[in-house]
Amino acid sequence: MKLISYLHGGASHWGCVIGDGVVDLGRRLPACACVAALLEGGDAALAQARQAAEGAAPDHALADVRFQTPIARPRRVFCIGVNYAHRNAEYKDGSDSPKYPSIFMRVAESFVGHGEPLQQPLESTQLDYEGEIAIVIGQRARRVQADDALACIAGITCMNEGTVRDWTHHAKFNVTQGKNWNASGAIGPWIVTADEFPQGYGALRVRTHVNGELRQDDSSANLMFGFACLVNYLSTFTTLAPGDIIATGTPIGAGIRFDPPKFLRPGDVVEIEVSGVGVLRNVVKAEEVAP
Amino acid sequence: MKLISYLHGGASHWGCVIGDGVVDLGRRLPACACVAALLEGGDAALAQARQAAEGAAPDHALADVRFQTPIARPRRVFCIGVNYAHRNAEYKDGSDSPKYPSIFMRVAESFVGHGEPLQQPLESTQLDYEGEIAIVIGQRARRVQADDALACIAGITCMNEGTVRDWTHHAKFNVTQGKNWNASGAIGPWIVTADEFPQGYGALRVRTHVNGELRQDDSSANLMFGFACLVNYLSTFTTLAPGDIIATGTPIGAGIRFDPPKFLRPGDVVEIEVSGVGVLRNVVKAEEVAP
Repeated sequence: MKLISYLHGGASHWGCVIGDGVVDLGRRLPACACVAALLEGGDAALAQARQAAEGAAPDHALADVRFQTPIARPRRVFCIGVNYAHRNAEYKDGSDSPKYPSIFMRVAESFVGHGEPLQQPLESTQLDYEGEIAIVIGQRARRVQADDALACIAGITCMNEGTVRDWTHHAKFNVTQGKNWNASGAIGPWIVTADEFPQGYGALRVRTHVNGELRQDDSSANLMFGFACLVNYLSTFTTLAPGDIIATGTPIGAGIRFDPPKFLRPGDVVEIEVSGVGVLRNVVKAEEVAP
Repeated sequence: MKLISYLHGGASHWGCVIGDGVVDLGRRLPACACVAALLEGGDAALAQARQAAEGAAPDHALADVRFQTPIARPRRVFCIGVNYAHRNAEYKDGSDSPKYPSIFMRVAESFVGHGEPLQQPLESTQLDYEGEIAIVIGQRARRVQADDALACIAGITCMNEGTVRDWTHHAKFNVTQGKNWNASGAIGPWIVTADEFPQGYGALRVRTHVNGELRQDDSSANLMFGFACLVNYLSTFTTLAPGDIIATGTPIGAGIRFDPPKFLRPGDVVEIEVSGVGVLRNVVKAEEVAP
C-alpha cells in the first residue's frame, strides 16, 4: 500500500494511492486522524485500511491533490550522517570506519511534500541535495535486538535531505542550522508499506537526478550501518514510535563534492528515486519575502 | 503567572500555580487543550487565563499533582552548546569565541517534569547534569530582528539538560545520542510568564546543586549569545512557534569537568534554580527493565 498525506479543497487528508487515483482513507477510517495514527494502530489498523481501499473507487485523481510529507507533521526525524562506505572514503581524512553512526535531527518544517517547491533561502547560495532512503517506524521499540529490528519498520519513503552547506559549518560541532532551513528538504511521495518488500531492504537502489543528470547512485547494500543496526542503535537511547522517521544517509555525489560545487539554483529539478518506492520530485524556487 | 502541565487522577491537565495550590485552567478555558495551545492564543488568551485564575479557589494542592514538563510534549527543543564565556575558556583548546552558536536538538521524551525521577541508563555510568535557563517561545517568528526578539518570549523555565557523556562522543560530530536518552533531563517546574521579568533577562542567575553542594553558578549576563541573539539567529532558518523551547547553555561546573568526574549516581538530588523562576528538583534513579 502507498500511504499519502495530502491537501484537497484546502483541508488535510490521508489515504492511499491506487494507480492514478487517491482513496481517502481518513473518511473511511475516522478513528485514524492521520497516517501516524494509522501506524499507531498496528497490523490491525493496516488490515482495515487495506480492506477499505480494496475495490474502492478513487475519491480524487492523483493530479488533483497537493502532496504533504507522507507523515504530515513528523514529530521526530533522525538523520544519519556519512553512512555509505564510499562516503567515508570521500572525506579523505584517513579515518577508519566509524564505530557508531553519527546522528542529527531535523524539524518537520524543514521538509515539503512531493511536487512542492524547495526554497533556496535568501541568506545562502549553497542549497544542496542529498538523496536518501527513509525508514518509517511502525511500532514502539526500545532496545530492540537487531534480529527483531526490521519488524519495527512500517515502510519506506524517499527523502531529499536538503542542506544549506555554509550553515553546517557555523559551529565546530553539530550541523543543526544547516539542516533545518524551512522547506529545504522533501519527503515522499508516499510510504510504501513493509509487505511490499518481501525481499527485505538489503539491496534498495537510491538515485538522485538534477535536471535529468545522474548525481548519486548507490545501494543500501553499501551502508556501513544497515537498517536493522540503525533501529537497534537508536532504540537503545530513545523509545522509537510509530511515525518516527530515520533518514539512512546519502551516497557520494552531493553538489558540494564537485569542483567547483554544483549547488542548486532556482528552477532546478531534483528527483530522488528509491527502488520499490518511486520518485520524489521537487523544483527549487528562490525564497520570496513580502516587502 | 506560573503555568504548569500536570497529571491528576491519571489524566493530563494544565493550569497555574497560586501559592501552594493549582488552578485548573484547562477546565475554565476549554478552547485551549494545553499550555502550548494557550500560547498559540497570544496575549488575548493569556489575559483570559489571568482573569480565570484571579480569585479562583485552587482545584488541587500542589503536593497532590504530578508535574509534567511545562509544555507537556514540546515539539521542538533547540539546545545551545558552550554559551557561557567561562565555558569556552574551560575547553582550553585555545579557540577564539565562536562567531555563531552551536545548536543541537532534543526530543520531548528525553525530559521529565519536576519531581519525577531522572533515569541513569543501563548502558552508562556517565549521566551528568547541566543546569540551564530555558526560553519558551510565545509567538510565530521568522527573521525577527534582535531588537524585537525579546517580545517573542512567552516566559522562562529551568532545565536540567542531562547528558550521557560517553555517548556524546560516539560520533565525530553531533552529540545527539548523548543528549536524547529517555528521561535523562528535566524541565520545570513551571513557566514564569514574561510579564514577571520587567527588568528583562539580562541578569538571571542559574545555579545547580547536587545533594546540596553548589556545582554551577553563573548569570545570563555572561552568555556569549544572549536571548535576543539566539531568537534572532534561530528564526533566520526556522519559523519559531509558540511552545518551542530554547535551552540557552550551561555554565562551568558540570560533573565531567571535575577530576575525577562527578557523575550522577542513583539517589543523587539535582536542583536547578533560576532567579525569578524557582527550583527544578529531581532525584536520580537507576533504570529498571522488566526481566
